[in-house]
Amino acid sequence: MSQSRIGILHPGNMGVSVAASFKTAGNEVLWASDGRSEATRQRAQDAGLNDAVTVRALCETCSIIVSVCPPHAARDVASEVLGYGFNGHYVDANAISPQIAVSLDVLFASAGGSFVDGGIIGGPAWTSGNTWLYLSGSTAAEIASILAGGALGVACIGEVPGKASALKMCYAAYSKGTTALLAAILAAATHYGVREELEDQWAQDDPDFSEQTLARIRRVTAKAWRYIGEMQEISATFQAAGVPGEFHLAAAEIYRRMDGLEQRSELPSLEEILLRLIQP
Amino acid sequence: MSQSRIGILHPGNMGVSVAASFKTAGNEVLWASDGRSEATRQRAQDAGLNDAVTVRALCETCSIIVSVCPPHAARDVASEVLGYGFNGHYVDANAISPQIAVSLDVLFASAGGSFVDGGIIGGPAWTSGNTWLYLSGSTAAEIASILAGGALGVACIGEVPGKASALKMCYAAYSKGTTALLAAILAAATHYGVREELEDQWAQDDPDFSEQTLARIRRVTAKAWRYIGEMQEISATFQAAGVPGEFHLAAAEIYRRMDGLEQRSELPSLEEILLRLIQP
Repeated sequence: MSQSRIGILHPGNMGVSVAASFKTAGNEVLWASDGRSEATRQRAQDAGLNDAVTVRALCETCSIIVSVCPPHAARDVASEVLGYGFNGHYVDANAISPQIAVSLDVLFASAGGSFVDGGIIGGPAWTSGNTWLYLSGSTAAEIASILAGGALGVACIGEVPGKASALKMCYAAYSKGTTALLAAILAAATHYGVREELEDQWAQDDPDFSEQTLARIRRVTAKAWRYIGEMQEISATFQAAGVPGEFHLAAAEIYRRMDGLEQRSELPSLEEILLRLIQP
Repeated sequence: MSQSRIGILHPGNMGVSVAASFKTAGNEVLWASDGRSEATRQRAQDAGLNDAVTVRALCETCSIIVSVCPPHAARDVASEVLGYGFNGHYVDANAISPQIAVSLDVLFASAGGSFVDGGIIGGPAWTSGNTWLYLSGSTAAEIASILAGGALGVACIGEVPGKASALKMCYAAYSKGTTALLAAILAAATHYGVREELEDQWAQDDPDFSEQTLARIRRVTAKAWRYIGEMQEISATFQAAGVPGEFHLAAAEIYRRMDGLEQRSELPSLEEILLRLIQP
């Protein structure tokens, strides 16, 4: 394998696993420590990433930059990289609408670089077969062959930018959309005093459903702050396709009401979560 | 068992199964043929229901009236019965919001009768253990003991009107809400050219998910016209509880776009359905 120099923005929980997978695939992976937290520094160090210190230096050193950040930050990260005159391959692996991906493609092309649209499905990629990075764009096949080989499954799904983001949006629309819907349902059931009866009825269909649902809602509070933007992106994705976007506006509002609950040492109780979801 | 005289409005596919169950429980069940279709007449006859001909005569003859109709017609059916001075037990078994149930409770009480809030969960009640009628209200326990005994499971869940409707709303919010959501997702995936990739990704989580989803969306077209109102009721139910109601406004719109597809001899193809869901 020929080694590429890849910059990762930024090595958060997901990003560092992706970076480690690129290293396993035979590449050198760098990050930029300037302004990042101590937790991020520790993660980057543990994964053996090289520190370019600044994003500017990262852009000057690397032929490929991969952006892994919350959706609401995706455009700012891309702008910063464009601002440094980066003209290599820019991979946006974030949960953004295909419309934003297409607009980034235009911007990177006019700067003389290439844009690769990406979407990650699954949790942090520490074991094979659980996490996928889908890529689309004019150079997606070439980039996929460089990034593939580690625990992260990498697949090119076409030459059209936006496809990888659309796939990510459609997948998350169900997984994260239904978690928000179930939280809203349990909040309403609590309000009307029928939560126990509802859980009994669900048990008629599937004995494990209630317990799994309760655990799912408690777990999601840790990531709710990041899902607000993702739900808004899904809503925009649906609306641009001529499909009703309100499902995920409601989901965004549910995650907004959960925001802040992640600041605990333990997961909050279901009762505390449901109480927050009811806002007359 | 002591026999009660029960009027059913109306013996549609669900209503006739409910009526048959009340008969099995030892009651006499009547219907009103005036203005109803030949299909309804045939169903009522096959189930051995007695014909009171008019709704007025039904109200004069029966001590219990049970309303089983599409949600958008529930208030009209109740108004008609109130208009005939009915002062027995009126059971609304429809998919209406608890707020409407409470308002009907007030109206029947001022007319000197009693209102029992009801909600049916499951399909037509031809076999035991698959369909439940939940009841709540001041006389719900008494009425439950009269109606129970056939294939339809009947349970009183309290004395407060609105609880049975709330339970029905919360249950349908997931079952019918997710069917609409999945239809919207597949429509968006089709628009962006990633339907095959999405189905492959779903298969990673559950090999049967795509096939079941496709069958579920095709099947629901037969009932979509009736689900429009039900989704609007759920949205109102959520909003009155201080929970975001937009999930089911979107679901109502999805079912509205499916409306009309039931007029076929065969279920429409998925492609035809998805094409209808995309309306730029």
